[in-house]
Amino acid sequence: MSDSLVSSFPALSSMTALWRARYGTQPPAAPALPESPVARGLMTHRSVRGFSASALPDGVLEAAVAAAQSASTSSNLQGWSVIAVRDADRRARLAKIAGDQDFIAQAPLFLAWVADLSRLDHVGQAHGRDLPGVDCLDTFLAAVMDTAFAAQNAAAAFESYGLGIVYVGAVRNRPEEIAAELGLPARTVALFGMSVGYPDRQRPTAIKPRLPQHAVLHAERYDSAAANDPAVIAAYDERLRAARTAQGSPGRSWSESVLARLGDVSALHGRERLPEALRGLGFVLGQA
Amino acid sequence: MSDSLVSSFPALSSMTALWRARYGTQPPAAPALPESPVARGLMTHRSVRGFSASALPDGVLEAAVAAAQSASTSSNLQGWSVIAVRDADRRARLAKIAGDQDFIAQAPLFLAWVADLSRLDHVGQAHGRDLPGVDCLDTFLAAVMDTAFAAQNAAAAFESYGLGIVYVGAVRNRPEEIAAELGLPARTVALFGMSVGYPDRQRPTAIKPRLPQHAVLHAERYDSAAANDPAVIAAYDERLRAARTAQGSPGRSWSESVLARLGDVSALHGRERLPEALRGLGFVLGQA
Repeated sequence: MSDSLVSSFPALSSMTALWRARYGTQPPAAPALPESPVARGLMTHRSVRGFSASALPDGVLEAAVAAAQSASTSSNLQGWSVIAVRDADRRARLAKIAGDQDFIAQAPLFLAWVADLSRLDHVGQAHGRDLPGVDCLDTFLAAVMDTAFAAQNAAAAFESYGLGIVYVGAVRNRPEEIAAELGLPARTVALFGMSVGYPDRQRPTAIKPRLPQHAVLHAERYDSAAANDPAVIAAYDERLRAARTAQGSPGRSWSESVLARLGDVSALHGRERLPEALRGLGFVLGQA
Repeated sequence: MSDSLVSSFPALSSMTALWRARYGTQPPAAPALPESPVARGLMTHRSVRGFSASALPDGVLEAAVAAAQSASTSSNLQGWSVIAVRDADRRARLAKIAGDQDFIAQAPLFLAWVADLSRLDHVGQAHGRDLPGVDCLDTFLAAVMDTAFAAQNAAAAFESYGLGIVYVGAVRNRPEEIAAELGLPARTVALFGMSVGYPDRQRPTAIKPRLPQHAVLHAERYDSAAANDPAVIAAYDERLRAARTAQGSPGRSWSESVLARLGDVSALHGRERLPEALRGLGFVLGQA
């Protein structure tokens, strides 16, 4: 099995093997990567889109949410909620709304991760106070980041139990329908979903190659030449194309994917109207 | 030592003890929390604002960034960069810009986590294509979430090596000055910083109490009554006040903090002008 197809999920390989699978290169000889079971677990991530029907073990969701709530949160505002959807009919409806993605109906658990300014509004109401800060774009963004920090901790926790996850950005295609299905109050929005379950071992998934580390990690100041080196992008394009071909997907390069995704707003499947959708859901995103 | 002051950073306690410290209650007897070293590590997080001068071991930054790049990213766009600032003078200047926070100058490493649409723009330019999708709010938000997923993985990796971290939202107080200091190109913005170093054992930090799990975790549909139960908020208010008092901070309740933070936009220290700042940095945040 090649390094780009480490498929024995969830068994962990060495950090060196994981580095090779992610970057297609040997890790730097000096400094060597210091061992850490946590870092190794995080490096093992691959998105799973084929699930077995087996339910989650008891207590795993509670442990994952405890990990999520243990993440940092801006000014301790805790601007997020998560809806755990187990009902099969609701998952089927959500699958339809969120880009017709069957794995949402297939995986036993779907989590809707919600940026939540409603709870903060209620604090103001309970004290008879207007809270103009809730209306600021920065507060919305802080809630978005809080939600993402929390969800990422939950993802790592789920994977540590041998479960697979995949993020579902397509809940932003039709945010109002998702809100109606989940009974979301004003000033909340489902930012992304997460399907959770045991990976179907008949459909192993590979580690996705990423841009080389020196294209995203800058020393002291941003290095545009390193971030956009045409030779580096070309090499990554070919590596990703090969990895996709090996998995039976259309062999698109990274650049081709970027152009397809962002070259025409219709490729956003409704997300181009997110500003309007957010205003309809009660967000102000204001101040100048 | 009380459960709310588990200070033996970075030694991990039991998941049961960590649950008690986080929530102030016993974990549910049934289902029991299944053991996981990763979940336990994540539950051990506490923000560190007092650092020793010791440098990071070789290879830890590279491992943390490998973990960061292993996180999910929307449509594999990888819309982020990270700037590693070790230079003491630059850290001192950043400390001044970001809310006069001394720990930025004190910790040996400061990471600026950057939402980065510049790299995607370059892909378009390399192919002579306009990419209208880059101008959509949804694409900016996807980059924000990508940045947060990546940073949270890095935080978990750093902590697994016995290091402490703290997020620094105050880089959004004066985004243009941060951009100038870090040489950020158009369509990039530092969303938050992260100071990294060994915790100063003379200044142990405690696990921060959070809202009870049933206030943020909803089953099937959003439960406003559970999210905003006045008795639950009142109990959390008092628990947080007691925890802060025990740490020598002003004994503010959660509700008091929310009102202070959001009741007047001047408490945002400049972040209320984020829409203008983002436009000045080249972001469009568009479409309706």
